Amino acid sequence: MIRKLVFSALVLTPFIASAQTTLPTTHYLPLELATKASQAAVQACAKDGYAVSVAVVAREGAVKVLLTQDGAGAHTGNSAQGKAFTAAAMGRDTAGLAEFIATNPANNGLRDMDSRMVIQGGGVPIKFNNVVVAGIGVGGAPTGAIDANCALEGLKAIGADL
Amino acid sequence: MIRKLVFSALVLTPFIASAQTTLPTTHYLPLELATKASQAAVQACAKDGYAVSVAVVAREGAVKVLLTQDGAGAHTGNSAQGKAFTAAAMGRDTAGLAEFIATNPANNGLRDMDSRMVIQGGGVPIKFNNVVVAGIGVGGAPTGAIDANCALEGLKAIGADL
Amino acid sequence: MIRKLVFSALVLTPFIASAQTTLPTTHYLPLELATKASQAAVQACAKDGYAVSVAVVAREGAVKVLLTQDGAGAHTGNSAQGKAFTAAAMGRDTAGLAEFIATNPANNGLRDMDSRMVIQGGGVPIKFNNVVVAGIGVGGAPTGAIDANCALEGLKAIGADL
Amino acid sequence: MIRKLVFSALVLTPFIASAQTTLPTTHYLPLELATKASQAAVQACAKDGYAVSVAVVAREGAVKVLLTQDGAGAHTGNSAQGKAFTAAAMGRDTAGLAEFIATNPANNGLRDMDSRMVIQGGGVPIKFNNVVVAGIGVGGAPTGAIDANCALEGLKAIGADL
Amino acid sequence: MIRKLVFSALVLTPFIASAQTTLPTTHYLPLELATKASQAAVQACAKDGYAVSVAVVAREGAVKVLLTQDGAGAHTGNSAQGKAFTAAAMGRDTAGLAEFIATNPANNGLRDMDSRMVIQGGGVPIKFNNVVVAGIGVGGAPTGAIDANCALEGLKAIGADL
Amino acid sequence: MIRKLVFSALVLTPFIASAQTTLPTTHYLPLELATKASQAAVQACAKDGYAVSVAVVAREGAVKVLLTQDGAGAHTGNSAQGKAFTAAAMGRDTAGLAEFIATNPANNGLRDMDSRMVIQGGGVPIKFNNVVVAGIGVGGAPTGAIDANCALEGLKAIGADL
Amino acid sequence: MIRKLVFSALVLTPFIASAQTTLPTTHYLPLELATKASQAAVQACAKDGYAVSVAVVAREGAVKVLLTQDGAGAHTGNSAQGKAFTAAAMGRDTAGLAEFIATNPANNGLRDMDSRMVIQGGGVPIKFNNVVVAGIGVGGAPTGAIDANCALEGLKAIGADL
Amino acid sequence: MIRKLVFSALVLTPFIASAQTTLPTTHYLPLELATKASQAAVQACAKDGYAVSVAVVAREGAVKVLLTQDGAGAHTGNSAQGKAFTAAAMGRDTAGLAEFIATNPANNGLRDMDSRMVIQGGGVPIKFNNVVVAGIGVGGAPTGAIDANCALEGLKAIGADL
Repeated sequence: MIRKLVFSALVLTPFIASAQTTLPTTHYLPLELATKASQAAVQACAKDGYAVSVAVVAREGAVKVLLTQDGAGAHTGNSAQGKAFTAAAMGRDTAGLAEFIATNPANNGLRDMDSRMVIQGGGVPIKFNNVVVAGIGVGGAPTGAIDANCALEGLKAIGADL
Repeated sequence: MIRKLVFSALVLTPFIASAQTTLPTTHYLPLELATKASQAAVQACAKDGYAVSVAVVAREGAVKVLLTQDGAGAHTGNSAQGKAFTAAAMGRDTAGLAEFIATNPANNGLRDMDSRMVIQGGGVPIKFNNVVVAGIGVGGAPTGAIDANCALEGLKAIGADL
Repeated sequence: MIRKLVFSALVLTPFIASAQTTLPTTHYLPLELATKASQAAVQACAKDGYAVSVAVVAREGAVKVLLTQDGAGAHTGNSAQGKAFTAAAMGRDTAGLAEFIATNPANNGLRDMDSRMVIQGGGVPIKFNNVVVAGIGVGGAPTGAIDANCALEGLKAIGADL
Repeated sequence: MIRKLVFSALVLTPFIASAQTTLPTTHYLPLELATKASQAAVQACAKDGYAVSVAVVAREGAVKVLLTQDGAGAHTGNSAQGKAFTAAAMGRDTAGLAEFIATNPANNGLRDMDSRMVIQGGGVPIKFNNVVVAGIGVGGAPTGAIDANCALEGLKAIGADL
Repeated sequence: MIRKLVFSALVLTPFIASAQTTLPTTHYLPLELATKASQAAVQACAKDGYAVSVAVVAREGAVKVLLTQDGAGAHTGNSAQGKAFTAAAMGRDTAGLAEFIATNPANNGLRDMDSRMVIQGGGVPIKFNNVVVAGIGVGGAPTGAIDANCALEGLKAIGADL
Repeated sequence: MIRKLVFSALVLTPFIASAQTTLPTTHYLPLELATKASQAAVQACAKDGYAVSVAVVAREGAVKVLLTQDGAGAHTGNSAQGKAFTAAAMGRDTAGLAEFIATNPANNGLRDMDSRMVIQGGGVPIKFNNVVVAGIGVGGAPTGAIDANCALEGLKAIGADL
Repeated sequence: MIRKLVFSALVLTPFIASAQTTLPTTHYLPLELATKASQAAVQACAKDGYAVSVAVVAREGAVKVLLTQDGAGAHTGNSAQGKAFTAAAMGRDTAGLAEFIATNPANNGLRDMDSRMVIQGGGVPIKFNNVVVAGIGVGGAPTGAIDANCALEGLKAIGADL
Repeated sequence: MIRKLVFSALVLTPFIASAQTTLPTTHYLPLELATKASQAAVQACAKDGYAVSVAVVAREGAVKVLLTQDGAGAHTGNSAQGKAFTAAAMGRDTAGLAEFIATNPANNGLRDMDSRMVIQGGGVPIKFNNVVVAGIGVGGAPTGAIDANCALEGLKAIGADL
């Protein structure tokens, strides 16, 4: 019977409450904050007339939120996710990583470490008290620097470290 | 100079206004409505205690919105996108397609038509005046039928055809 | 019964006519013009003795037309689609993007933003009244500059912006 | 110097004329006929109100032509290519293969032989004098049988075996 | 300078201690326990003469541990990871899911929800106090039932729910 | 200096002679025998008028030999490799596995264990003294049974277990 | 009935003889010559003590032959196929292409044109009377120049253009 | 009957003992040593406060061991596997390869030879008596040099060549 597929861990309340006390814990960014940050970044770019995609990716690699503004290019959804993944996984802003590689070509292999990575300006880690919990990535503005500025507006909207 | 990368089509306002009058037009679901429908579906499932992912995919195939509830399984993001893509591209609810294949095994190849498709209950087309403009997909509730009910709440929230 | 699979949105006439008036619209390049542009590009290259593939990709990312001339290299179909996708999605000619990256190596990550992209001369956006509706890509001529010239003949054939 | 990239095999005329007489030859379907067949199939479906994608794939596996009608579903381009590849590679109509598998489930592995295959009604081999030179695939009509009928109109348009 | 790449979140100690108190937390299975469970499963199968691969995948989808016994088949590494991912993501043993699909063919689409899934006996969720924190998967024994028995020995070794 | 790239392990002679005596060893099928078996299988099918691809895959998963007969279908190269991989990795003939799944649908997940697998008649393990060292796969004959017969001729040609 | 799967185009003899006289023809490299060239290249490298993989890829993109010497690195099979594909598709030796890109970085996008390409020394086109019919690629020797020398021995063995 | 799936080659004992004496043999790194090396590398990095993933890949390309430390970035599992594969397949430390490419840009194509490769500091071959049997890769420390130092601790732990 299909009821057999029901299992308690998917039920919202116990998920964050009941696990064995001996297991360690880690913080994560809840959907509510991830959505708030994403919407702030979309709006920041829209205010300047740019149609972008914005993604928030959890530190463990899963996409929490993806929003694609009307008229944004067909590549921006993947671009935003790639930048957010990179910022979350490496705990670094992607513009800094891109500059680092450009001046240290022996580190070009960083681009090949994981197929989900995009090392291009526009991704920044989401940190609270200097601990990385996720990354936010923006794609579609005319430059990576503008993308990154919109991402920073996302951080501000949720009180994350700047 | 990097300014060369700026181009007007990415600027929001002219995108929906100025193209050649001789070109045909098509309707699309704007981000605002796509977000509203997604959030309604996430909330509908959460109200019953289920942590799900919800995606809205445009008829042309691009993901407009993806939201993943806290605690949803690691597969639900892809599952929701696949169901939404299928519903948008084929203009059919995915539960009906799954039943059709189960009783007509010579149509099993429908599953292989496009790697983005997931033919499993939980995806429904978003239609206005009987015209498909997108699809919404839900993944993570205990059954596809529950997933689909949450998706329908998304349709209601934006006044789409039921 | 298989008739259940029939749905009205796939029927040609209502598709471009009946959607909810409250939904926004966007212009698109119809198949007729996409084919005309592609054939003109194939012929322009053939006239000079070059066997090429030509693709037209819609701004939303789907391939509208692909034509592969007899004797064109086995890579040209994918090359043409990648250049057309890039030009459509970014609204830029691919030769300019390639030059931009070559002189700004910190932007090399643009190549990784989307697996469908090919940033190499031979792709140009299809614009009417300065609004991007698609991209055309050519692959197989001895240089990207020749590829791009054939692509421009495609634009001329349909009266697109030059 | 970039001129070094020019090589004679890409020049159209010698391609079909000058190779070593000791090498064997094989027939192929030229672009002109592939386009004619594809357009006939698109039109046959459009006449009945269906928006489809049509592909012609050479026996060696490369896509010769892909045409996507306005309003066709986002999956139809891949679906049409997959059906055309299967028909060309196996020399069989895909509906027959699908029926064969449905009644011989131990042959389900045929679906996994090559990631480019789609075993679903709508693909037919293009033969002249009973020799397979290509395949044509149609996707997007309400049933595979209608898809296949449109494909047959493509065969008729170029005088291929029926 | 390369020192710029150092960032505190990768440093072990603060990772589990210092994040903002307002962020929610989730339990996870530490490497030490994941390794212990994997080794117990490898040994349980080896004792009966079977060479297997064993994987532990975190609930969020990342592979924590993979061990491949000498002489195990070339597919067993991927098989074990797929089973472990499925058990972790869905919170169900994979044998039960496989039986469910076999008797409810309209749910065959479950297999396509995520490319990382393998719905075949041999994967079981790792739960403490009925909360799923990971999955363990075994591949390479003569039957899925034997695979699953070895996986259960892994659970016992770390005191997880049975 | 490029000479730095030379390293002794790629030099043929020491590879099979000098490793640490404390490390265990495994037998493998040398290229000479793999080629002989493949050519015998190609010829066996050709004698009956069938154009096939034949692959030999080592037990560890690497393709040792692939031969594609003139006129063989475009899918046969991948099909042959998939069948050979499956037979090598699982140590079973693929026809038997296909029959097993057909009569035990709860084992359909075997098809998803590794993307390199093709469970369809035509692959047989290569064993000497009942130890699997490789697999041979044939694709392109009208039935999997004929494919398998040609594969068996490959085994006979090198004195492998039948 | 399974006999229905038999079709004449797979039968060897008519394949090269009976197609419609109105269809154009193209030359191809038969398996016999492809095998001869591959074996000569393997032997040339082995004579100098290098364990390599050698591939011959037809101009249309399909792998005709792949041989992997005992002890060759795990990447050499894919490397050899990629170099052979590139040489066949572009009609150029891959070392020349690699040098061209190194001195013209704006052409780096050539590497992304097709996922089957590897632009690295060791691949050369197989031409007869200056017409490209295939490519041969070698991987595993200490330098691309040595790989290429072994490939040239393959050309000599079958009397192809040097 | 499912018992038919049992086959002797998967049984541990005969695997390393009974094959035909006429077949050649090769040495391999057993799971016990691979695990020991991996754990030593994880601990070496942890001692300095870095959370890393460590992989050991056999010379034939299969992953023997993967361990991911708590808190390591989401990309480190793939990064470690890629570095280990590269070191095993090419028999070189990946830092040296990265430097070689950086100073010889015409060899950039080495990065594209196999999709499993990651040419970035942190991978070293595992050799005994100068014969490569596997590779070890580390990902997640602040620099590739630190990654490589941890990898070397893995070599020391099992007495491999330094």
